[in-house]
Amino acid sequence: MEVKVGVTNRHVHLTQDDLNILFGDNYELTPRNYLDQPGQFATVETVTLKTPKNMKEYVRIVGPVRNYTQVEVLESDKEYFGINPPVRNSGNLEGSETITIIGPKGEITKENSCIIANRHIHINTRDAKNFKDDEIVSVKYNNLMLNNIHIKIGDNYALAFHINKDDAIKNNIENGGIVILRKE
Amino acid sequence: MEVKVGVTNRHVHLTQDDLNILFGDNYELTPRNYLDQPGQFATVETVTLKTPKNMKEYVRIVGPVRNYTQVEVLESDKEYFGINPPVRNSGNLEGSETITIIGPKGEITKENSCIIANRHIHINTRDAKNFKDDEIVSVKYNNLMLNNIHIKIGDNYALAFHINKDDAIKNNIENGGIVILRKE
Repeated sequence: MEVKVGVTNRHVHLTQDDLNILFGDNYELTPRNYLDQPGQFATVETVTLKTPKNMKEYVRIVGPVRNYTQVEVLESDKEYFGINPPVRNSGNLEGSETITIIGPKGEITKENSCIIANRHIHINTRDAKNFKDDEIVSVKYNNLMLNNIHIKIGDNYALAFHINKDDAIKNNIENGGIVILRKE
Repeated sequence: MEVKVGVTNRHVHLTQDDLNILFGDNYELTPRNYLDQPGQFATVETVTLKTPKNMKEYVRIVGPVRNYTQVEVLESDKEYFGINPPVRNSGNLEGSETITIIGPKGEITKENSCIIANRHIHINTRDAKNFKDDEIVSVKYNNLMLNNIHIKIGDNYALAFHINKDDAIKNNIENGGIVILRKE
């Protein structure tokens, strides 16, 4: 099965409550460009991330709003921010890192909010008969084998292999490239 | 005379006409945080900069809208973008570089739009009796002499020494620091 690569940079997901704190009451995110998963978009708005050690402005938000607030950073951000976020599935935030998110109207410091996204493949439920949710698979990219990739099954997913930017750079993987997923 | 340092990162100024192309008809910029010059603000909105060689997302816009569109980049962007913008006063765009600015609703490729901002000091007209506009001065920062700094006089200026980020890093100058300006 051929799967298209989507390289993901650091980004933030917000609940409506947290969005209200950062941008004002009943704030609505403005789509900037749509992403490979249906309905998901990068927004015109950005936030600043801050830790006791450092800050980074103009970090993208991915909308629409979610039922949890989550900051996904990169391996190289560990030293920059002086934090140690775990490599995780999206939404698995227990025991993850603390980070401060700053918007034009307010800021929030959130424990258990910051992870590094693991390698994962989104598969639509209709195409996922041979897979179990959170099954670990491998893919081939040119002559390279990539392991430890989590399967994510959902009714609204489009087929895509997501790998974070640092992981992609380290392995010379290009956004929009094709990997081969084989069910062993 | 003590002058506060303002370190400037890459950013874009837009005319209302260009803002309309990038963000939609009659678009109004949303202030994100105010800057050291009265009425000037970084906006919630960002743009993407693009050349044949490379692109950079989430570049800040500085509002309010101006009567010229101008992209200010850094020395290190020359290699990144594969362009050769001159070091200039803001607004002095003749013969400067071409760059593409991309927003959520459209894009513009503009000749004579891209410079590297020179070192300059903003002085309010009421305090500028001993200076001429565009006079070249030097300042002292700790034990370092910095030369070739352009005086900018305006009725709405606050006293500030602006130096771009690459120049500041190279000379170990911190945002918010103090330089001493002496009229020789």
